[in-house]
Amino acid sequence: MNELKHMACVPCAEAGSPLAADEIDRLRQELPDWEVVTEEGMVRLRRTFTFPDFGQALAFTNRVGELAEAEGHHPRLVTEWGRVTVEWWTHSAGGLHRNDFIMAARTGGLHEG
Amino acid sequence: MNELKHMACVPCAEAGSPLAADEIDRLRQELPDWEVVTEEGMVRLRRTFTFPDFGQALAFTNRVGELAEAEGHHPRLVTEWGRVTVEWWTHSAGGLHRNDFIMAARTGGLHEG
Repeated sequence: MNELKHMACVPCAEAGSPLAADEIDRLRQELPDWEVVTEEGMVRLRRTFTFPDFGQALAFTNRVGELAEAEGHHPRLVTEWGRVTVEWWTHSAGGLHRNDFIMAARTGGLHEG
Repeated sequence: MNELKHMACVPCAEAGSPLAADEIDRLRQELPDWEVVTEEGMVRLRRTFTFPDFGQALAFTNRVGELAEAEGHHPRLVTEWGRVTVEWWTHSAGGLHRNDFIMAARTGGLHEG
């Protein structure tokens, strides 16, 4: 069972240091659809979601945006015709925090409906 | 006077070949805030707009999305905390079409209000 999607983020101010590689590996097993990538010097979780048109892609961007605002933790959202790419990381931690895995799991839940 | 922002796109099916370099140079003079970049083998117009928070960035993404839907021509929209990066190009033309300059000018108009 994927428990991450039922969790809330801890405040970013308490985020502390990034997760160690073995913790990332363990948490990734719960999120097999997400890649771990490094961009602009920060390790991030990335996943591309596909849609039949631009409007539905933009609607998903808005659903993820609402979640982000509710939790006070914000992703990078790339909206294109037929797809949205979502990246989660924690700037204040300098990489991936447990929060990012929680948000990734909840993002996946928004897509599943 | 910037006339581009008052124009509508021609249908993409009629888009034809991309603009030549000298035409791009001429049209760019009307859009000094936009960069010409090449990504994934396509020349594109790119501009980053800044905002005081995530919510206002996402609201701008939606305004550009509405314009895109109205014209049937769709950009790449990168929404992050405090900024939105917009890229316009014409896939069917294999690069930049006059439509992209029109859409870029109109995107700038949305930001100016």
